Amino acid sequence: MELDKISFEVAFNLCLENAKSVEVKENIFINEALGRFLAEDIYAKRNSPSFSNSAMDGFGFRHSNNKKLKIIKEIFAGDKFEDFDIKDDECVKITTGAKIPSSIDTVIPIEKCLEVNDNYIVIPDIKKGANIRIKGEEVQKGELLLQKGEEITPEVIALLVREGITNIKVYKKVKIAILSSGNELKEPFEEASEDDVYNINSYSLKALFERYNFDVDLIGIVGDDLDSTIQEIKKLKNIYDVIITSGGISFSERDFLYPAFIENGLKPLFHGILVKPGRPTMAGIMDNTFVFSLPGNPLPAFINAFALAVPTIRKIAGARKYYFNYVLAKNEESFKVNPNKDHTILGFLHAGKFKVYEKYKYGSGMLKPLFYSNSLVLLNKGRDFIDAAEVLKVIPFNNDFVEESNPFN
Amino acid sequence: MELDKISFEVAFNLCLENAKSVEVKENIFINEALGRFLAEDIYAKRNSPSFSNSAMDGFGFRHSNNKKLKIIKEIFAGDKFEDFDIKDDECVKITTGAKIPSSIDTVIPIEKCLEVNDNYIVIPDIKKGANIRIKGEEVQKGELLLQKGEEITPEVIALLVREGITNIKVYKKVKIAILSSGNELKEPFEEASEDDVYNINSYSLKALFERYNFDVDLIGIVGDDLDSTIQEIKKLKNIYDVIITSGGISFSERDFLYPAFIENGLKPLFHGILVKPGRPTMAGIMDNTFVFSLPGNPLPAFINAFALAVPTIRKIAGARKYYFNYVLAKNEESFKVNPNKDHTILGFLHAGKFKVYEKYKYGSGMLKPLFYSNSLVLLNKGRDFIDAAEVLKVIPFNNDFVEESNPFN
Repeated sequence: MELDKISFEVAFNLCLENAKSVEVKENIFINEALGRFLAEDIYAKRNSPSFSNSAMDGFGFRHSNNKKLKIIKEIFAGDKFEDFDIKDDECVKITTGAKIPSSIDTVIPIEKCLEVNDNYIVIPDIKKGANIRIKGEEVQKGELLLQKGEEITPEVIALLVREGITNIKVYKKVKIAILSSGNELKEPFEEASEDDVYNINSYSLKALFERYNFDVDLIGIVGDDLDSTIQEIKKLKNIYDVIITSGGISFSERDFLYPAFIENGLKPLFHGILVKPGRPTMAGIMDNTFVFSLPGNPLPAFINAFALAVPTIRKIAGARKYYFNYVLAKNEESFKVNPNKDHTILGFLHAGKFKVYEKYKYGSGMLKPLFYSNSLVLLNKGRDFIDAAEVLKVIPFNNDFVEESNPFN
Repeated sequence: MELDKISFEVAFNLCLENAKSVEVKENIFINEALGRFLAEDIYAKRNSPSFSNSAMDGFGFRHSNNKKLKIIKEIFAGDKFEDFDIKDDECVKITTGAKIPSSIDTVIPIEKCLEVNDNYIVIPDIKKGANIRIKGEEVQKGELLLQKGEEITPEVIALLVREGITNIKVYKKVKIAILSSGNELKEPFEEASEDDVYNINSYSLKALFERYNFDVDLIGIVGDDLDSTIQEIKKLKNIYDVIITSGGISFSERDFLYPAFIENGLKPLFHGILVKPGRPTMAGIMDNTFVFSLPGNPLPAFINAFALAVPTIRKIAGARKYYFNYVLAKNEESFKVNPNKDHTILGFLHAGKFKVYEKYKYGSGMLKPLFYSNSLVLLNKGRDFIDAAEVLKVIPFNNDFVEESNPFN
């Protein structure tokens, strides 16, 4: 395969196929676990509910033909008591979540009673078994509750706490080094003239990856010099799970990233994608380190970091789910594209419609298209016009992930 | 208005109308600013680009009828030089991002040249002005770049760094106290028998709010006792911007949260929503503290925290955008609902379709419906059947926010 004639979709799949999950595990408290990935299967330690209980505030009784029931007792959530028998013409006042004695098989909510006194109630017909949550009806002790690789979300934390699980085994956090390349770059805290360009990528990519809960170190800027680039990369190799560079990865004699990585033993997956914008992009593997070299322009650097690197790094981080969960939306305004290339297209997704940013006529040196967009369309080559009202697969920047999907249009 | 006969939509709007933004501001470094909200307007300090530069690796020249151009110089990105004149039959070799001398008005990319030698190139016809990014073409110095209340996203960080802005004024982080109520509750790290229920809500709600970058303190559990509930609330009042409680907010004599808040001076906005699930929910204002009392059941507690509290707390945190940016999706499987109530309906959104969880027959005491869902449908009362293929407004849990929207079906 020619390294520089690759489609975005092939690049995407090559990255995912070649990414290996970190193996190192650690034990952490659930309060620190948000965004981490489970390194073990979790089996239910108890039934859910763990005891049969009332689903409503109301009255519990044994189902019979009696319609007038004497209130013999009150049971509140949290009350503990010896199991007891109840007669057919008796009932207990009971609150939501309160334990049900084994002699009671039905609960009627207060508001459905025909009459409620201090001493008795009168009830209409009601189905036997109503408003009782039976022990184990949702989860049986011993069943598989969560799979290895599951992301720890607030919902997962709810499941774990219900089991009384406070410590879990997760994969170590992925460590990412970000290195920017280019003589023209100044750090934003440095003095700079109009002729200088600030190192945007380090900061925007750090923030992007941190939003996905990866650990990021900013390595700084390396100038356009082969030797110092080789040395800089040597220092990072095998220390980091992932190295992200930006700039210096095009095809001129001042683009030193590619030879510097090769000198350090990188096995490239591709170098150059037939996509607009974002062609100067490389990915490869250098011993235990996955490498992404992104364009110097912050817009395509950001897009490729989001669309290529994030799913790949999720896989490296141990995630089960790393494919974009795209949505479908109607294209709001027609636009033209070059049919000989793939395209990554920015726009705003709202209320079922995708509006491409300024008819896709923005430049890759700009940032406003990124700021005013909230989603991305991945378009394979072969089309020259996207009609209004056409339905597109759109990836929101606040996307979630699924086990499998094909987000390409 | 009767406090307990309110629709979900009215409850939602009441919360947002009555939420006031925190006023306290602080200066922070952009690397720590992700997820915070700008407390100042930001105006452009420089033009973007700040100097005219080449959009491509190629050759720069003055547009004329000459097709054979002598290469007189190389200019690389980051090179600084005195401005110079160029003749009509000359050109400079130039890299992407390199500064353009004022005498050059057009750049041709290498791959479009008809011939390229060490000494000269031969070019086809090309439009004057091509492949040059003109100083200020994207941003004019002095223009409004970012508005007060904008969330600091990776894209915003890119805009700020381009300006050389490293410190910004943001609103202080919202401080939330979470208090669980109920005699039946044990903390997950405590010994518990089958008859005990773990305090799920504190942990799942903490994680939910932390995902939105709010600061959360877990206050613990208060038993079913009016006096201790009054005292507990007194300690939190005015210390926290928001108090979230769960449980104890229904209408039985053991539900002490409402009287305890009233005793502390709370002005309720509503107490009880005509929604399934999630009726026992209260919101109100107690001096400078916004209060949400959520159901004890973890599923409706989570849904109401997401659907009611998160947008409200974003407004309190200073956000400009706090309305859900829903998507449209086709309902995959028909389901029945009670027409006399509003409904919050869990399901899975994927590839343009929404699949309700188990035909909406799950119980509000369960957690799997939450774990296996990734989105929510807010349905107003009046419907008894939702047909397959009907298009619904769906709110993904990984939702973003817009300035205005109506997410109710």
